[in-house]
Amino acid sequence: MSHHYSMVAKHVNNIQAEDKIFAANREAVNAAAMYGKEQVINATVGAILDDEEKLAVMPTVMEVLRNIPDTEYAAYAPIAGTPDFLEAAVSAAFKDSRPEGFIKAVATPGGSGALRHTIWNYSDIGDTILTSDWFWGPYKTLAEENLRKLGVFSYFDKDKKFNLASFKEKSSELLARQDSLVILLNSPAHNPTGFALTGEEWLQLLEVLKHQAADGTKKITLLCDIAYIDYAGPSGRDFMKHLSNLPENLLIVVAYSVSKSLTMYGLRTGAAIGLSANKDVVQEFYDVCQASNRGTWSNGTRCGMKLLSTIMHDSEILLQVEAERKELEQLLVERAAVFTEEAKQIGLDTCPYKAGFFVTIPAIQPGDACDRLKKDNIFAVPLTRGIRFAICSVPAVKLSGVPQKIKNAIG
Amino acid sequence: MSHHYSMVAKHVNNIQAEDKIFAANREAVNAAAMYGKEQVINATVGAILDDEEKLAVMPTVMEVLRNIPDTEYAAYAPIAGTPDFLEAAVSAAFKDSRPEGFIKAVATPGGSGALRHTIWNYSDIGDTILTSDWFWGPYKTLAEENLRKLGVFSYFDKDKKFNLASFKEKSSELLARQDSLVILLNSPAHNPTGFALTGEEWLQLLEVLKHQAADGTKKITLLCDIAYIDYAGPSGRDFMKHLSNLPENLLIVVAYSVSKSLTMYGLRTGAAIGLSANKDVVQEFYDVCQASNRGTWSNGTRCGMKLLSTIMHDSEILLQVEAERKELEQLLVERAAVFTEEAKQIGLDTCPYKAGFFVTIPAIQPGDACDRLKKDNIFAVPLTRGIRFAICSVPAVKLSGVPQKIKNAIG
Repeated sequence: MSHHYSMVAKHVNNIQAEDKIFAANREAVNAAAMYGKEQVINATVGAILDDEEKLAVMPTVMEVLRNIPDTEYAAYAPIAGTPDFLEAAVSAAFKDSRPEGFIKAVATPGGSGALRHTIWNYSDIGDTILTSDWFWGPYKTLAEENLRKLGVFSYFDKDKKFNLASFKEKSSELLARQDSLVILLNSPAHNPTGFALTGEEWLQLLEVLKHQAADGTKKITLLCDIAYIDYAGPSGRDFMKHLSNLPENLLIVVAYSVSKSLTMYGLRTGAAIGLSANKDVVQEFYDVCQASNRGTWSNGTRCGMKLLSTIMHDSEILLQVEAERKELEQLLVERAAVFTEEAKQIGLDTCPYKAGFFVTIPAIQPGDACDRLKKDNIFAVPLTRGIRFAICSVPAVKLSGVPQKIKNAIG
Repeated sequence: MSHHYSMVAKHVNNIQAEDKIFAANREAVNAAAMYGKEQVINATVGAILDDEEKLAVMPTVMEVLRNIPDTEYAAYAPIAGTPDFLEAAVSAAFKDSRPEGFIKAVATPGGSGALRHTIWNYSDIGDTILTSDWFWGPYKTLAEENLRKLGVFSYFDKDKKFNLASFKEKSSELLARQDSLVILLNSPAHNPTGFALTGEEWLQLLEVLKHQAADGTKKITLLCDIAYIDYAGPSGRDFMKHLSNLPENLLIVVAYSVSKSLTMYGLRTGAAIGLSANKDVVQEFYDVCQASNRGTWSNGTRCGMKLLSTIMHDSEILLQVEAERKELEQLLVERAAVFTEEAKQIGLDTCPYKAGFFVTIPAIQPGDACDRLKKDNIFAVPLTRGIRFAICSVPAVKLSGVPQKIKNAIG
């Protein structure tokens, strides 16, 4: 009876069977059910598992969440977010490195919501959004869902440093044909590679943008995706001071999320934080993001907002949370050391890892390589030109030998 | 130093200072702080307050939520939603009135997310979305954010029945110039009027749509916004049986939300439920909504999903929740009786209320009338042609005399 009939509108180009990351995770979960957890390495999803392979939840965070009053779960949050949350999100994002300038935040579901609002409001339909060639796959989904394209520059030069020349070339190329340019930059603890720009590289990048903004004809928005910043070591926020006093047509948006910072991925709590030397630009940012909230998902998860604001307003609780997070960061450091040292020994090339949840291995045919790894019960995520391996979810004891198996799978 | 400078893209037309509903609520909250709660009537937000004017939280719902395991708060949900939630959402939406046909659901943040995905995927940019002339204000925000317009038909005829002729005229007019038509229909317990179509009126509406769909050249999507259905009495779901066996180019989307059904507004949990006699159409619906999830807010609040699925999978808990909800519904029935009976006595015209959270009073200059009401410390929401009064949040004892004050304010 049923025949192939399509109901969707002509512009809908974004049909896909299943998200690659969650699909790979599903396969890994099935394999663990079949062969036993100890036989399976599930390096798919970006969530920290402890050394017993249980989802790491910080006890203090959970205790604060459990003690939130009933109404803070039940009630609607204001469309823009509760004021105490917005203040807390700005503090948590910048900590001691708050740039000078006007700053206003709007609550969004995780960092994804901040990306959506920035793409939607600060580029034109049909525009190309710019990011690095190694990127989190959903950047493309976010661009395409909103009828933009995603263009890339080479993130690394031949010395595995920030490729300023490529960034300059690609951004200039796009600005030559677009009125506006939205750039998605994920640093530090970059997903998927673990890369971070140095302070010097940040200055160079901003010099390029200031030069491009200089004649005032173009509108440039630099979205700093700092999803993993709380796992990037003590210097992770050093770049923020460079974001002060930029030209008014160079807007900074910081995508902040509690997903990783509080390991509360499922609460969908985050913020889009606008920063500009021009007060109007930041007020406009707040206004359009608030309207965009109402026009997409209405408002945010109130208990997640209360969770962050409670933690940020009590210095004792905050210290405890930071200590617990430090332990998780230490897990990542250990796991990364095991992986990258073996990789070095056996000559497996990796992208330049500095910190974070993932290590990425370049590969010509990543899909095939990931399929071969599945036969060893190793599950990772195929990217366009490599394999993303989530060290965040694999205990150190399971990691030795993995680089060799990856090397074999790449062939 | 600062001068007026705009950074947003040209298509962004959706800047507004503050959402009207939340703005009116803020004023009411301020007045209560200044004059005392007992002096202020806050009839702004669509959330049930008990007779002590505290947010009504169902004890059993809260207990289930408190007992959800840590990881069900912390972990990411799959992009489309957890399978047990999606099953529970379909059961909760249709109960014993599940239509025949293929049905697939995708998790969304409340009903708003379901509206966004339906507008985005099933109409063209620039299209006019159709709804009733009395409508929830954010329908317009949702349309405009997504670069659609909002058009209206007259919901009521002169006898305060469903205005079939107007519905037919406006939908035909739009279909004459558009390839597709998305209709947002909020019934039963309509926000803002409390109206519901009768079974007979539903049949007539569907006959119109089937006729319009008959030659197969047009794509029609009827979104049934059932946000308040669990407060619409035992016959609230009777219309659902008429949704079986519709033509393949007439898609039904049900926007389901736990916000009101579980009085858990702040968890942002809901679902877009697609229904069609054609399997491919429903699969496509699932696919595009899943992709849209990833391209806007990524995934949903996991604890909200677990909350609903826990309740729906335990018949004893479900019975308790339904009993507690029945008490809340009874509050609404009492309050509506007080309001509408006085209105009748004093000759204050209201829209045809049958059930739900709101009573609406037609007014020529609703903004002015609401401003005058503020002087009596009565806070309600000005609509285009009337005043929305949230009986859900005002105890019965405070209601007597209010219709007279509204009559005076309208002048």
